[in-house]
Amino acid sequence: MATLQLASWVSNLTYTSLTPAVLTAANNSLFNWAGCAIGGFAFQPAPQIALNTTLSPFSGPPTSSIFGANGSITGSVADAQVAALVNGIASHVDDYDDTHLETIIHPAGPVASALFAVAEAYGPVSGHDFITAFVAGVEAECKLGLSVSPEHYDVGWHITSTVGSIGAAVGVGKLLGLNTTHLQHAIGIASTQVVGMQVFFGSDTKSFHIGRAAQGGMLAALLARNGYTSSLEALESKYGWLHVVSTRENATAYFDQLGHIWEIEKNTFKPFPCGIVMHPVIDGAIQLSDETTTQGKSIQDIKSVQLRVNPEVLVLTGKTDPQTGLEGKFSIYHAAAVGLLYSEATPSQFTDEVVKNATVVDMRKKVNVAEDANVSKAEAYVTLMFNDGTSSEKHIEHAKGSVENPLTDEDLKKKFMEQVSLAIGDARAERAYTAFSGVQEMNDVARIGRMY
Amino acid sequence: MATLQLASWVSNLTYTSLTPAVLTAANNSLFNWAGCAIGGFAFQPAPQIALNTTLSPFSGPPTSSIFGANGSITGSVADAQVAALVNGIASHVDDYDDTHLETIIHPAGPVASALFAVAEAYGPVSGHDFITAFVAGVEAECKLGLSVSPEHYDVGWHITSTVGSIGAAVGVGKLLGLNTTHLQHAIGIASTQVVGMQVFFGSDTKSFHIGRAAQGGMLAALLARNGYTSSLEALESKYGWLHVVSTRENATAYFDQLGHIWEIEKNTFKPFPCGIVMHPVIDGAIQLSDETTTQGKSIQDIKSVQLRVNPEVLVLTGKTDPQTGLEGKFSIYHAAAVGLLYSEATPSQFTDEVVKNATVVDMRKKVNVAEDANVSKAEAYVTLMFNDGTSSEKHIEHAKGSVENPLTDEDLKKKFMEQVSLAIGDARAERAYTAFSGVQEMNDVARIGRMY
Repeated sequence: MATLQLASWVSNLTYTSLTPAVLTAANNSLFNWAGCAIGGFAFQPAPQIALNTTLSPFSGPPTSSIFGANGSITGSVADAQVAALVNGIASHVDDYDDTHLETIIHPAGPVASALFAVAEAYGPVSGHDFITAFVAGVEAECKLGLSVSPEHYDVGWHITSTVGSIGAAVGVGKLLGLNTTHLQHAIGIASTQVVGMQVFFGSDTKSFHIGRAAQGGMLAALLARNGYTSSLEALESKYGWLHVVSTRENATAYFDQLGHIWEIEKNTFKPFPCGIVMHPVIDGAIQLSDETTTQGKSIQDIKSVQLRVNPEVLVLTGKTDPQTGLEGKFSIYHAAAVGLLYSEATPSQFTDEVVKNATVVDMRKKVNVAEDANVSKAEAYVTLMFNDGTSSEKHIEHAKGSVENPLTDEDLKKKFMEQVSLAIGDARAERAYTAFSGVQEMNDVARIGRMY
Repeated sequence: MATLQLASWVSNLTYTSLTPAVLTAANNSLFNWAGCAIGGFAFQPAPQIALNTTLSPFSGPPTSSIFGANGSITGSVADAQVAALVNGIASHVDDYDDTHLETIIHPAGPVASALFAVAEAYGPVSGHDFITAFVAGVEAECKLGLSVSPEHYDVGWHITSTVGSIGAAVGVGKLLGLNTTHLQHAIGIASTQVVGMQVFFGSDTKSFHIGRAAQGGMLAALLARNGYTSSLEALESKYGWLHVVSTRENATAYFDQLGHIWEIEKNTFKPFPCGIVMHPVIDGAIQLSDETTTQGKSIQDIKSVQLRVNPEVLVLTGKTDPQTGLEGKFSIYHAAAVGLLYSEATPSQFTDEVVKNATVVDMRKKVNVAEDANVSKAEAYVTLMFNDGTSSEKHIEHAKGSVENPLTDEDLKKKFMEQVSLAIGDARAERAYTAFSGVQEMNDVARIGRMY
């Protein structure tokens, strides 16, 4: 009954049932997504290879924006399938998006990438309807993720995209007004497209996962709307999603909480553009960097750096000698080094150039990592040993950007503006912020691509 | 090293290394695929919903044929991505295609659907190059399938499409002349798109799997050619394909046999358009039907039908009360009933009308199935009990269409002509047969859509 239970809840969801906390979370999630999608497009090869070199022969009549593109194949617009794929890649390529920490899902990517493309192609769409569809998709993917966590992630699946295609189908299905039966079929068609494995972390394919999930989920909803059949029990059947991709499943228990516990309220926003498990170390390294300078010492006086972290950190981000910016996003050694050397970790610290910089390489070699299962994934111990024999240590209990230590509204706007200004200039960035942070009250979200 | 091993073998494969038996098998596989793709498009809703209702807004400038379509969105052509998806659906929708029995992979679908679309879009392509790319793709998917069989299938994956995206990427990569490194990246991007679960057998989504694998594999090859990165060790890494989708993997052992043992030589062609595990029962039912009539008895004198089959038969085809033609293709009860009543099992016996026909429904109710693990998947015992107390039994050791009892050249042409004539008329069917059975010696396969 899990598939029917989910589809029924989605069918019945109304804007008026969304609490103020849900609306705030949805709003933050949407403009944070947009900042990443606009900033990510400009400076990474992945979305540009996808759009300009590869997909240009495969776009139908343009309807939907590539939010970070200027003067691309069709004047920054493409068909909704191509737009979902490219915006999805762009929104995740910097590893700067959002995180539902219990599952390590980055929720907005698959759902928002599909929804904006569909809204522009099939609009007009009111802000209220758009937000409702977005929340439906995010709740679907996070509840599904919880029901198979942590086994599903531990075996190597990239959970953001494996649940993301279903979230995108739910969101698009809700936006287009599919009935419960069609939603069940859409969930089925989406669930059979399982995209994403962790071997691709640090390569262009990681962000492809998010775009493909958005595109596949949208296609599932469109097919189902036209009568394409799958299964009414796609999730719970013996040979369906929950059992094929996991040895653990508890979907009904989590679906019982739909509308009672809102997963989107737990969404967090990354202060650093890289793997989330490195954030406590970066937070500590930046604080120690500032203290070192304040104390009149030089970062060059550091003899060695000792990290004590949860074992998962080395599993996911153990690259000792990254060669590209993308690989640097999955190197705890690089993360600690740039935090100390630059006292910040923005997209500028994860470029190919910085990864190959001799000073950075030297600092990476000074970093030692000890695994400690008693250290949670949210915390880290960072210790600097100086040439003069002194040392200083920082214990980060809850990294910046966590639920306990969230980015402020000001932080979030600053993050948006920094990314977007670099890509499209200050004036357009301000207008883009106004547009994407105001989705909720818009008369027609289909106009969003023309608002900045 | 598995990914490199596969990519290197593909890079080095030449037409002259293909044996006569390989060439014959490739030729038969290609025109059998084409017959299914043309016949499947005409009479099933799935490919028509996909092409006409859903994908029409998402095709770029038309380059590639939908082989069974007349007067569709763009005069029977679409862009290569849409064509691969729709031809893939059409080629599998009747469950009438080909089978590599050791793995239950239907090999031609994902590879041929991608290759014809690419050849037309990027041609000219010689017949020799086309056949070489096709064989490369088929060998890749079957060796991969063997290396995870039977665990991968047993857990519920639809193996044709889960390996099919990789086969399609290999085929397209070979056709476009990708170097070894680019082939490795293409294999990676394809491998992270795992499409297909068995819960969808009997619905439109089963054939979607084949089309989506073709489309995703092609996209992987095109992205990799343009420098999109994945991993050089996508298959063998701890969090890569072989380990994420299977608890058993033996890829290196099977890749060692590449070019020594040719999987395509083991390809078989279905005489009946339905799940392969039902074929022994259908073969027996048809023989018993003919004998009953010859003996002057009537099929209406049958009191009950007893089947003794491998337990897998009920797992995959246990639907007692199918409601659609597609569901009938996964009902051993329906299969036995139509074999007895019609003395044949062609697409005409798996329509919605026949599935709901009262005489057929009555006969299905007379069928009892006993599971017997000592009966192999290739065999079946079929026993008829008559109202007069007599009985007759047939033991099928190797069903028609198996490796041991293959379709003859005449059978294969008859199968092609029956499907294709119904779809596009006798004259065009003859020309289509000439074209698709002559690919090997064509100067330019890109012309194939204009040859019939």
